[in-house]
Amino acid sequence: MNTNSANLMALAPNTSNKRETVCIFGTGDFGRALGHKMIQCGYSVVYGSRSTQISNLIPKDAEVLSHAEAAQRAVIIIIAIQRQHYNFLTPLAEILHGKVVVDISNNLKLNQYPESNAEYLAQLLPGARVVKAFNTVSAWALQSGALDASRQVLVCGDDMEAKQMVMNIVHALGLTPLDQGSLLAAQEIENYPLQLFPMWKFPVFLSLGLTAFFFFYCLALDVIYTYVYENNNFSFFIAITIPNRVCPVMALILLGLVYLPGVLAAIIQLYRGTKYHRFPDWLDKWMLCRKQLGLIALAFASLHAVFTLVSPIRSFVRWRTSKGIISQALNNKTEPLDTTNAWLSDSYLALGILGFFFFVLVGITSLPSVSNSVNWREFRFVQSKLGYVTLILCTAHTLVYGGKWFLSPSAYRWYLPNIYMLSLVVPCTVLVVKFVLIFPCVDKPLTQIRQGWERNPKSSE
Amino acid sequence: MNTNSANLMALAPNTSNKRETVCIFGTGDFGRALGHKMIQCGYSVVYGSRSTQISNLIPKDAEVLSHAEAAQRAVIIIIAIQRQHYNFLTPLAEILHGKVVVDISNNLKLNQYPESNAEYLAQLLPGARVVKAFNTVSAWALQSGALDASRQVLVCGDDMEAKQMVMNIVHALGLTPLDQGSLLAAQEIENYPLQLFPMWKFPVFLSLGLTAFFFFYCLALDVIYTYVYENNNFSFFIAITIPNRVCPVMALILLGLVYLPGVLAAIIQLYRGTKYHRFPDWLDKWMLCRKQLGLIALAFASLHAVFTLVSPIRSFVRWRTSKGIISQALNNKTEPLDTTNAWLSDSYLALGILGFFFFVLVGITSLPSVSNSVNWREFRFVQSKLGYVTLILCTAHTLVYGGKWFLSPSAYRWYLPNIYMLSLVVPCTVLVVKFVLIFPCVDKPLTQIRQGWERNPKSSE
Amino acid sequence: MNTNSANLMALAPNTSNKRETVCIFGTGDFGRALGHKMIQCGYSVVYGSRSTQISNLIPKDAEVLSHAEAAQRAVIIIIAIQRQHYNFLTPLAEILHGKVVVDISNNLKLNQYPESNAEYLAQLLPGARVVKAFNTVSAWALQSGALDASRQVLVCGDDMEAKQMVMNIVHALGLTPLDQGSLLAAQEIENYPLQLFPMWKFPVFLSLGLTAFFFFYCLALDVIYTYVYENNNFSFFIAITIPNRVCPVMALILLGLVYLPGVLAAIIQLYRGTKYHRFPDWLDKWMLCRKQLGLIALAFASLHAVFTLVSPIRSFVRWRTSKGIISQALNNKTEPLDTTNAWLSDSYLALGILGFFFFVLVGITSLPSVSNSVNWREFRFVQSKLGYVTLILCTAHTLVYGGKWFLSPSAYRWYLPNIYMLSLVVPCTVLVVKFVLIFPCVDKPLTQIRQGWERNPKSSE
Repeated sequence: MNTNSANLMALAPNTSNKRETVCIFGTGDFGRALGHKMIQCGYSVVYGSRSTQISNLIPKDAEVLSHAEAAQRAVIIIIAIQRQHYNFLTPLAEILHGKVVVDISNNLKLNQYPESNAEYLAQLLPGARVVKAFNTVSAWALQSGALDASRQVLVCGDDMEAKQMVMNIVHALGLTPLDQGSLLAAQEIENYPLQLFPMWKFPVFLSLGLTAFFFFYCLALDVIYTYVYENNNFSFFIAITIPNRVCPVMALILLGLVYLPGVLAAIIQLYRGTKYHRFPDWLDKWMLCRKQLGLIALAFASLHAVFTLVSPIRSFVRWRTSKGIISQALNNKTEPLDTTNAWLSDSYLALGILGFFFFVLVGITSLPSVSNSVNWREFRFVQSKLGYVTLILCTAHTLVYGGKWFLSPSAYRWYLPNIYMLSLVVPCTVLVVKFVLIFPCVDKPLTQIRQGWERNPKSSE
Repeated sequence: MNTNSANLMALAPNTSNKRETVCIFGTGDFGRALGHKMIQCGYSVVYGSRSTQISNLIPKDAEVLSHAEAAQRAVIIIIAIQRQHYNFLTPLAEILHGKVVVDISNNLKLNQYPESNAEYLAQLLPGARVVKAFNTVSAWALQSGALDASRQVLVCGDDMEAKQMVMNIVHALGLTPLDQGSLLAAQEIENYPLQLFPMWKFPVFLSLGLTAFFFFYCLALDVIYTYVYENNNFSFFIAITIPNRVCPVMALILLGLVYLPGVLAAIIQLYRGTKYHRFPDWLDKWMLCRKQLGLIALAFASLHAVFTLVSPIRSFVRWRTSKGIISQALNNKTEPLDTTNAWLSDSYLALGILGFFFFVLVGITSLPSVSNSVNWREFRFVQSKLGYVTLILCTAHTLVYGGKWFLSPSAYRWYLPNIYMLSLVVPCTVLVVKFVLIFPCVDKPLTQIRQGWERNPKSSE
Repeated sequence: MNTNSANLMALAPNTSNKRETVCIFGTGDFGRALGHKMIQCGYSVVYGSRSTQISNLIPKDAEVLSHAEAAQRAVIIIIAIQRQHYNFLTPLAEILHGKVVVDISNNLKLNQYPESNAEYLAQLLPGARVVKAFNTVSAWALQSGALDASRQVLVCGDDMEAKQMVMNIVHALGLTPLDQGSLLAAQEIENYPLQLFPMWKFPVFLSLGLTAFFFFYCLALDVIYTYVYENNNFSFFIAITIPNRVCPVMALILLGLVYLPGVLAAIIQLYRGTKYHRFPDWLDKWMLCRKQLGLIALAFASLHAVFTLVSPIRSFVRWRTSKGIISQALNNKTEPLDTTNAWLSDSYLALGILGFFFFVLVGITSLPSVSNSVNWREFRFVQSKLGYVTLILCTAHTLVYGGKWFLSPSAYRWYLPNIYMLSLVVPCTVLVVKFVLIFPCVDKPLTQIRQGWERNPKSSE
């Protein structure tokens, strides 16, 4: 501890002119950007390069030396070269012994190599204290200072002291270091900047596919059918009417799909009588993208809400309304208030509003900062209890809205059901199975299984 | 099972041999789940158990030994047994001397024991380096990998090095360790997973009570009165009309209740002439749940907004509109534009929209990630200044909306005031008192008191 | 007072004897508040003061000694006095040698002194281990416990061990310490609590100015012109009609201004043939406030959405609608559905809804917790790709809405264009230039330049 704190004192002396010297191997774009930034923040920077002639691209205040000379000047050496050239470091192994060697490399593809670049570097330089850092920041962001995005620098390494030294530099550059543990985390850190919403891919493609299907289904029934049989040109339905049919259907189906895997998992566990068998792969993956499915469902529900609210402003709706009123006026009569109709209309609106309200509540708790500030019990309460309340309200909303048309033959154009009937299949299935699962005679064994009890302990060998 | 875990091992391939051995005392559900997860992440796991016969529930790659033997194999010993059985550890005190002993226990009730389990463990094993961790994660979440919820593991302990070792394991399992300081924090950490929105209880029950009261008040005046005296069946008002009367009233009252304690506190401080006396308990508690009251008020305001926007789609409203138009048409006359009416209608809508806008702004800044990124001065600016702007706009919205009915006798059915009149009591009181408090002759002594000045320094002895 | 603090002591009962003694220099408001809080949390507190007579304002359980005596009692000394009195510490330099000296001071203005208070303190006491902390917390918040706002305490210091000791105290007081690195960060930490939304100033003033301009522009064209030439009193347009014209215009212009600097930067880089020249200062500043401009644009867009949705409820709109219907009814005719009109009306509504939807999506990702959980590639995808989709949709929405009036002479009152025409200038410019920039013959050199290539490497010397 004694030498240690003496060391650390030396690293962070009192004023900026006393910042330590950092060596950067490689004068590529990122190496230069990092050097610029470090000089701005008061560090001395020495570049190690094959050709030691000073290029005008390199920051003015930096020196350029051979790799060996540069490495001797500093305790911290940043390797700003690509993995395929790491071999040239082997002869420098002795000079780099005991030094803090920072791997900042990124790959072009996920899991491009069997081991991470940082671990490969550690194998090449067994005596060096390798730290992975800075790969999650872009050169452009470093240089422009326009760090609107994440200022987080993921750092990992096996040597605590070396890691701390690198994290101090990260701090000094105005970034936020996040300690990710030992060098084993390097693979994940290197994959991190290559990802483009990996968890969203399946839910997004599923939604796009379903949306396209329902869109053309509605187009056929509402526009083409009307044009063919009733000779009405309702092509403008494409803009609002059809989207406003597809959105609620998508929202309800996706919301059902959020709760379906949980119900399936319960059935599988009850059937197997144990929780110690893994679920099939597809179910595991499905469960992991429930949050994304739910958020897409919420997006569709929001669009449905706005499309609905906007309807009184639509030219077509205003025309239809005034046509109805004028025909009444011309017939010299006033229709009395139909209380049943008023009840139906108000109930499905109220159910929809409440369902949407709870849906938004559940959505807000899935914001990272909110879900981090609740404990496991509270999170389950919101996501499970309030989620089922949402599902029940939204299903009821759809049932009340379209209930009267189930038995009407005019709802079956070309013998096809209206799409809101299709939308009810998944949520109703989930709700019925869930209703069965909360019966005590089913719930009790399920709870036991989830607490670790097994029906046939021997048979699971 | 076998191929399965082999599969998972392959994910962290040539690295597993680097991880240290961890000992787990207890083969209950959480102990097994934790062991499974640790083996997956490359640790060797040794179970300490009373019966050393290998159960098929225990992960395949783990050994099961007696407690004493298991403890000797590892530096880190995780105690996955319940507090009431901690006594059996006393004879092992010598073996556990200097070891890192991790307490992962939870209680069934808040503050069940005088001292936390971890502190009790530290008393039993004076030589051990006790660390509290993992109690905030559920076994189910660990096993299913479906960690949608918080990945945060709260860690505390008196020994820095021991704590760091445990935090490294937490990292390796893909969770986020949060250092909570010394073992004194264990009580709070053990209470944490037992809480179910503790700060929300009072505001939620208060709102439910008030909502029920106002709902039945409206039901009596709007549905029952109309049915009795006018013989109109407006029972469908229950779905939207009455909720849309109750919601704004609740929003306004709760918003007033957010600012009332601040005003009361100022009065008490002015009266006492010092800030060094504690406020009464009820006021302290009230002040601590202002954020929750405000968010519930925002929820009611949002519902009010949607209920209002939905009104032109309602069957009843469309019927009423067309009835009005038809009666004009049948009388062959067109009413001229009433400019006063247009002014009133547009003003209360505009005031409501602006009030709601500022309300949402204040709500957004209470998101944890937003309020963490502003400083104290900015937070006070938003919550206090913008909050009062919201309160003023919403009160004005209500006054303009209902002003014309204050003097109209028909507004007093059964001699009871309309509920929007009741809703104005709290916010108007707050605004009037606040208005008095910002007068310089009142504001100056208050500011002095808040900076530490006392009117009667001697009398406060 | 006595019973009171005894009460609070009981909350952390048998643990208080474990905490160390802390010395506080200065008995001002913040010193007393901090002392109170520390005693509550189990620390022993010794005050160092010029006059050692016990004032009744000082917490009962604290001792008051001379500075020298008090400093000898504790390892940690908190300096709760103002910078201008730091001189008196010079004679104590020897006693404070090796001690942890905590600077908690704040200044009255940003960058009031050339060096930070903590660095000045470190110069005065070369042997002391100076740590900056607690200046971001208010005395009022510490005392009232009403820490709704940020619980973050920014800590910096050169001595790791000293910093850790202070961070332990911060934890013990229920606050969250954030390690900001070495003492060089002190200047920034001291400036932090003085800021009032520094990044928001320019965007807010710009928006206010533009809003005022467009408001009076509309007032002239819509209210005054109508009053003068058509003798109609449409003064009530001030409440909703005119705001609902200004809001979309502001939203579109500000959204254009978010993407304009990026386009300008690309042109400058193409012209210069290098990225290693700094942009002009105004462009740098503009780029740094793009997020704020975008959020203000989103606020205007939201207001526009609500103002539009509310329109069917407006007294004026209902009067206009019924007037139209009645005149049709009195003429005994029904207008047929105008399909072109229905198409136009539905398209601009649909475009507006989709544009707003993407706008909100982009807005959500700028929440700190969301943008921290995405990587650089994902952030750029959302902010750049989805942002341009938003801009295209919103521009199209405006074009379809007002397209028919471009050629109509009645749209040019007083020979001035309608404001939605003005609003199209900035976004259309951005879109046209961006369209040119994505042509391969322009995009390729730009990409090369951004990767570090230079057209005239020598000339940049």
